[in-house]
Amino acid sequence: MEKNLERIKDSSLHDLVVQAENAASWIRDGMTLGLSGFTRAGDAKAVPFALVERAKKEKFKVNIFTGASLGSDLDKVLSEAGIINKRLPFQADATMRKNINAGNHLFVDQHLSHTAEMIRNGVLPQIDFAIVEAVSITADGMIIPTTSVGNSLAFVTHAKNIIVEINVDQSEQLEGLHDLYEPAEQGRRLPIPLTKADDRIGTVGMPVDTDKIRGIVFTKYMDSPSPIVPPDHETEEMAQHLISFLREEVHAGRLSNNLAPLQAGIGSVANAVLHGLIDSEFEDLQVYSEVLQDSVFELIDAGKVNFASACSITLSEEMMKQVYGNLEKYRDKLVLRPQEITNHPEIIRRLGLISINTALEFDIYGNVNSTHVSGTKMMNGIGGSGDFARNAKLAIFVTKSIAKGGNISSIVPFVAHVDHTEHDVDVVVTEQGYADLRGLAPRERAQLIINNCVHPMYKAQLRQYFEEALTRGGQTPHVLEKAFSFHTNLAKNGTMLVEEVKSYV
Amino acid sequence: MEKNLERIKDSSLHDLVVQAENAASWIRDGMTLGLSGFTRAGDAKAVPFALVERAKKEKFKVNIFTGASLGSDLDKVLSEAGIINKRLPFQADATMRKNINAGNHLFVDQHLSHTAEMIRNGVLPQIDFAIVEAVSITADGMIIPTTSVGNSLAFVTHAKNIIVEINVDQSEQLEGLHDLYEPAEQGRRLPIPLTKADDRIGTVGMPVDTDKIRGIVFTKYMDSPSPIVPPDHETEEMAQHLISFLREEVHAGRLSNNLAPLQAGIGSVANAVLHGLIDSEFEDLQVYSEVLQDSVFELIDAGKVNFASACSITLSEEMMKQVYGNLEKYRDKLVLRPQEITNHPEIIRRLGLISINTALEFDIYGNVNSTHVSGTKMMNGIGGSGDFARNAKLAIFVTKSIAKGGNISSIVPFVAHVDHTEHDVDVVVTEQGYADLRGLAPRERAQLIINNCVHPMYKAQLRQYFEEALTRGGQTPHVLEKAFSFHTNLAKNGTMLVEEVKSYV
Repeated sequence: MEKNLERIKDSSLHDLVVQAENAASWIRDGMTLGLSGFTRAGDAKAVPFALVERAKKEKFKVNIFTGASLGSDLDKVLSEAGIINKRLPFQADATMRKNINAGNHLFVDQHLSHTAEMIRNGVLPQIDFAIVEAVSITADGMIIPTTSVGNSLAFVTHAKNIIVEINVDQSEQLEGLHDLYEPAEQGRRLPIPLTKADDRIGTVGMPVDTDKIRGIVFTKYMDSPSPIVPPDHETEEMAQHLISFLREEVHAGRLSNNLAPLQAGIGSVANAVLHGLIDSEFEDLQVYSEVLQDSVFELIDAGKVNFASACSITLSEEMMKQVYGNLEKYRDKLVLRPQEITNHPEIIRRLGLISINTALEFDIYGNVNSTHVSGTKMMNGIGGSGDFARNAKLAIFVTKSIAKGGNISSIVPFVAHVDHTEHDVDVVVTEQGYADLRGLAPRERAQLIINNCVHPMYKAQLRQYFEEALTRGGQTPHVLEKAFSFHTNLAKNGTMLVEEVKSYV
Repeated sequence: MEKNLERIKDSSLHDLVVQAENAASWIRDGMTLGLSGFTRAGDAKAVPFALVERAKKEKFKVNIFTGASLGSDLDKVLSEAGIINKRLPFQADATMRKNINAGNHLFVDQHLSHTAEMIRNGVLPQIDFAIVEAVSITADGMIIPTTSVGNSLAFVTHAKNIIVEINVDQSEQLEGLHDLYEPAEQGRRLPIPLTKADDRIGTVGMPVDTDKIRGIVFTKYMDSPSPIVPPDHETEEMAQHLISFLREEVHAGRLSNNLAPLQAGIGSVANAVLHGLIDSEFEDLQVYSEVLQDSVFELIDAGKVNFASACSITLSEEMMKQVYGNLEKYRDKLVLRPQEITNHPEIIRRLGLISINTALEFDIYGNVNSTHVSGTKMMNGIGGSGDFARNAKLAIFVTKSIAKGGNISSIVPFVAHVDHTEHDVDVVVTEQGYADLRGLAPRERAQLIINNCVHPMYKAQLRQYFEEALTRGGQTPHVLEKAFSFHTNLAKNGTMLVEEVKSYV
């Protein structure tokens, strides 16, 4: 305990140390909680777990706002405990997903750069308790986050009360890794002075009004590791297509050999595609992303990436050991910022990012569905993909051309939910090839997508749709009564494939 | 002629004066032209008309890039002449619309802030000839635009050749009205230093390499006036609902009585809604928009608006006389900027705009279709609505709840084309009422939209759809096979209304 207290450099706060159960007891029915945590990293753990314990004896509901998805099965147990009224802005848990889709609790799927703005503007309910994981509290009252920043700065700044979970198993060496900057309110705001991925524009910790700190809890829960999904044949092919495209851009003089700052979405496909750059000719790369996955550290180790900025570090167990065991090696190559800054349209447009995100499905005109299976069931959420795709220099979406052994085509006539419109999608990539949609009219896009990206087993079927649509005319030809036929076939027959179309040329 | 030459203050350029026919003769098959002009204002007219004349004797095709729609029936005659290969980023002409939808020429429907970026990045073909209307050329070789700026700065900066149309009937008093600023290339760009609607950050004219000026043509064609569509009962009701909403925001402390800088889309509905502010309690308003229509000048005259920034001024004939006849009165209250700056995500997010745009239709979850009739036929284009809605503090969409005497409901189960996703739409307004969708999950949004915005004749039908969808479950419940039933009913029966549903509660 004595040693733990050394993590609270402002000794006037030592009296605030409590057990997680105590802190959890302050939370009332109807409150709104702002939890640290972004894609399994840096989540407040002890107090939420204690809250779940409380729910075994007591009925209450709270709104849970976070950075993104939580680790340690927290989204699962919170959801199972039945204490969630509304959850935002992102989740990625199977149980929570089930409860959301069953209508058991509400989920607001938001652009990850928007939440902090909506808290600051008073559009979302005020946070009653911000509960944030920290490495330490500095002598001047700054909270040093751990492995993610997420929305924590907005939470602590605008919350009525703060509970700090100091994770004594997280290295104090993390101090100095973060760069905390909060824009002023809209209309009184100056330009955000960040012009390069490695600029530092803020403070190393979150400056807070220490009077709002109600309690400090010591914890030892480590972050959940990411499951390792190694690159497979298809993701390797996708990486090669992406590299071919980038090579063409360099050749055309639109990119240099250092490319432009890279963003890659969470998940195994984007991770594998990014990993593919390791054997490319591109060098002195920079990353300006949301989450740093294993691939970024592999690229740093290979000398390909010289700097990486993000709001969270989400690693496999093995990579965790390597990175956190050798922080000295990586510290000057990394910065962690609030997700409002990593995903800010101002910065994304200014830096001219190359943005690589995963699509669930896309359609023949280039609209992308990132979230809803068959248009209705939430998968995870849009995350930052919209922040990036809208404002990036190159908005690239990747997906395998088929799923479920070929019963699903990832390219359909009309996506059953639109997260990214035709206006925002520059390039689509599958293991079949890529389609560069920039400057193309819808009829041109459809031809290119069907030719380059669709799996051979679905080409005839999509061509048939497109040709029938052409007979109807229009800027974006469609046969509305058949636009969702791929999806309704899947629901009825277990496959999108229509046998008799196979012979269609 | 002598007098005309006074408009070219750099006398070394006097030799470049030619007839429009001469200038038009330089244009070759396959070239790309960048024409000034944004929503009927400030379009190059003489050379394009001469080009149309040439097409009577000669076969050729060109790409036509502009700021937005052209006036003087130029889009009509260019389209009829059959000389267009590709047109971007916006149009609003009935004949061109017909040709686009028939597939007779290609149309790329772009966010209006994106075109300049894509020209600078070399993604679009290089402009062979920029043809821009001007008031004059200064002694130091700057081109002073007339009533719009649009994409002209990007066109003249990046074009191989420039043709200037000096409109001697446009007052030289327009000099000083413009503020020309071009961001550096992405990655080397500094923050755009604009922090208030009335900031000036650039030059009064377009600085050009005068060696690129191939010809100068004197013209007298005035801009086409806007048709006057006076406010009607429904638009007045929409304005009142909008004012109620804004009043609530002020009451909740989220806006002050000066609101926030206003943007309003082109068209009679947005114009009428903005006009409605004239009798409101709000004052000292500022406008940071794309196009200034009559309503903005009415608000200036009424002392409600004290400054207006835009990239184009598009007025009725009567208002043209008043404004251009009294420029002294308005000059210090106006600035015209490139559309890349008026529509820039960096500025829109920084200023925290209130953005009001017209929807063609929206769905029960808040997705908006701005462009495609029945999902296929292009109306005009997305224009700046996406630039604004994505990044504004308040993204508001307005539309009458029904059209064609009630045969069309503007609220449908699933929009047949998505231009603005549920993530980007804050408030929807019809003459029935408004729905504030911020922070709501899809199931909450559907209830609110059906209750507040749908016309009574369609409430039962939409409730029935939603309730059937709820039996299927999901975050965003849908019955995919019936999602477009409103549209297919319209195609089949001439109405979206299903008689037997009328009794459904």
